[in-house]
Amino acid sequence: MKILSFKLNGEVKFGPKVKKEEAVWDVLAIQEELEILPSFPTQIIDGIALGFDFVEQIRKLVEAASQSEQVAKFKHSFSDIEWLSPIPRTPKNILCIGKNYNEHAKEMGALEAPQDLVVFTKSPTSIAADEQVLSIHEGKTDALDYEGELAIVIGKKGSDIPKNLAFDYIFGYTIANDLTARDLQERHKQFFLGKSLDGSCPLGPYIVSKDEITDPQNLTVVTKVNGEVRQNGSTNDMVFSIEDLVSILSKYVTLEPGDVILTGTPAGVGKGMNPPTFLKAGDEVKVSIQGIGTLSNRFE
Amino acid sequence: MKILSFKLNGEVKFGPKVKKEEAVWDVLAIQEELEILPSFPTQIIDGIALGFDFVEQIRKLVEAASQSEQVAKFKHSFSDIEWLSPIPRTPKNILCIGKNYNEHAKEMGALEAPQDLVVFTKSPTSIAADEQVLSIHEGKTDALDYEGELAIVIGKKGSDIPKNLAFDYIFGYTIANDLTARDLQERHKQFFLGKSLDGSCPLGPYIVSKDEITDPQNLTVVTKVNGEVRQNGSTNDMVFSIEDLVSILSKYVTLEPGDVILTGTPAGVGKGMNPPTFLKAGDEVKVSIQGIGTLSNRFE
Repeated sequence: MKILSFKLNGEVKFGPKVKKEEAVWDVLAIQEELEILPSFPTQIIDGIALGFDFVEQIRKLVEAASQSEQVAKFKHSFSDIEWLSPIPRTPKNILCIGKNYNEHAKEMGALEAPQDLVVFTKSPTSIAADEQVLSIHEGKTDALDYEGELAIVIGKKGSDIPKNLAFDYIFGYTIANDLTARDLQERHKQFFLGKSLDGSCPLGPYIVSKDEITDPQNLTVVTKVNGEVRQNGSTNDMVFSIEDLVSILSKYVTLEPGDVILTGTPAGVGKGMNPPTFLKAGDEVKVSIQGIGTLSNRFE
Repeated sequence: MKILSFKLNGEVKFGPKVKKEEAVWDVLAIQEELEILPSFPTQIIDGIALGFDFVEQIRKLVEAASQSEQVAKFKHSFSDIEWLSPIPRTPKNILCIGKNYNEHAKEMGALEAPQDLVVFTKSPTSIAADEQVLSIHEGKTDALDYEGELAIVIGKKGSDIPKNLAFDYIFGYTIANDLTARDLQERHKQFFLGKSLDGSCPLGPYIVSKDEITDPQNLTVVTKVNGEVRQNGSTNDMVFSIEDLVSILSKYVTLEPGDVILTGTPAGVGKGMNPPTFLKAGDEVKVSIQGIGTLSNRFE
C-alpha cells in the first residue's frame, strides 16, 4: 500500500493512493462518515505504530467507501490536495547514515568505507514534501548538494533489536533527498548544521508498506538534476545493510514509530564532480526508487 | 520562577516550586478546580510558548490557591511526587555545542577552541530526570563520561534571530549532564550515537525563568563525582556566548518552544584526567549552577 499525507481544506489528512488513479482516499472522512471500525487513528504515526493492522484497517475503509453511494466524497484527485511529507513530523531528528556506499565514500575523499556506522541527524524542521519548491538558501550556503536515498520508516519501538528481527520493526519505505550545505558541513565539523536548513529533507511521495517491497536490498536509486542522471546506484551496494542499520542504531538509540532512517547515498553527488557542481536556483532534482516512486523538488 | 515537571498518581503535571518549601504547586489541579483563568495550557511546552505570560498565569493560580480553603489539595511535598525532566520531551533532538570552553577544548586534544560552532545532537529518548538512577550501559560503553552544562530553554519560534534579540527567544535555563560514551563518540566519528544512550541527558531539577537569572553569562558551573570537585568553571569563559549560540544556530535551524540548547562544558571531564577516568556503577554525579540548583544522578 502507498500511503501519503496531504492537506485538504486546511486539515492534515492521510490515506492510500487510489489504485491506477492519480487520487487519494480520505480514510479519516470514511471512518467519520461510515463508522466502519471501532476506532481508527487520526495521526499517521499512531497508525504506523499499529504495524500491518494499519494497512488492513485502511483496506476495510476503502472497501466500504468503494461500495458506498458517497464514493466521490471520499476520493480526491491529486490536483485537489496539497502534498505533505508522508510523515509531516518525525518524533526525533531524522537519523542519517554517512558514507554507506563504497563508491560514495571514495568520491568524498575517504580511502575506504567506514568500519563503524557514521550517524548524524537532520532537524525535523527540515522536512519538506514532494513537489515543494525549496529555497537555495542564498547567503547561508554556496554549496547546496543533493543526496538521493532510500528511507526506512520505523513502525515499532525498539532497543537492542537483533539483526534477524530488524524487518519486524520496519513499517515501510520512502524516498529522501538528504540536501546538504557542503560548506557548512565542512566548516562546522559535525554535520548537523549543514544538514538542517529548512526544506533540506524532502521525503515522499509515499510510504510504501514493506509487504510491497520484495527485496529492499536490491532497488535502483536514480537521481537526476534537470533530467541528467547524476546518481545511479543500487541498495545492494550498501556497506551496512538495512538489517545492520536497524540493529546497530537500536543498540545505542531507542527507535520509535515514525522514526525515519536515511540509509546513505550512492556515488554521484555534486561535490564529487570535477569541478564540484552545486545546486542553483531553477534546478529540479528528481530521486526515483524502484517500487516507491519519484520525489521531485525545484529550487528557487 | 522555578518550574518543574512531575508525575502524581500516574499523571504528568508541572508547576512552580513552593517558596521556601520542598514542595510544588499543582497548577493544573488549581485551574481545573477553581477555574481562575479563561484558559491554561495542559502541556508545559505550550506554556513555555506563551513566554512570560506563562509565569504570570502560574502566579495568579498560586495566589488563588494560597487563599483557598483547599490549599492542601494543591500543594505536594517533593517526597510525594515522581520527578520528571522539566521538559519531558523536546520537540527535536537536544541541540549541543562542542568545545565551547577554551580549557575544555585543550583537554580534549584541540590546539585551540573552534573558530566555528561545533553542533551535534542528543536523541530526546536520552532525556532523564533529576535523581533518576541511570544505567552505566555495561556492554555498550566502557567510557561513560560526565559533562556539566548550562542549558537554555527556548520560548519562541525563530529563524535568523539577530544577536541583540537573542534573549527574547529564551524562556529560561536549566542544568544538563551531557553524558557521553567516549569510545562510541570516537569510533563512530560523528558524535550522535555516543551522546544518545538512554538516560544520557538528565535535565533539571527546574527550569528557572530568565527574569530570575540576572547575568547568565556569569554563573559558576560545578560538577562533583562522589563529592569530589571535577569541574569548576564559569559561563563567562564560553567561546561563543549565549547570544551567539541562539543567533548562529537559528540562522541554520529553526528554533521552537521547548527546544533545549546545551551550551558546552567547562574543563575537568573524565577523559581529560591522567589517566582518563570514567564513570562506574555506584558513582554519583552532581552538577550545580548558581541560581538554578543541583542536578543529581546515581549510576548502576
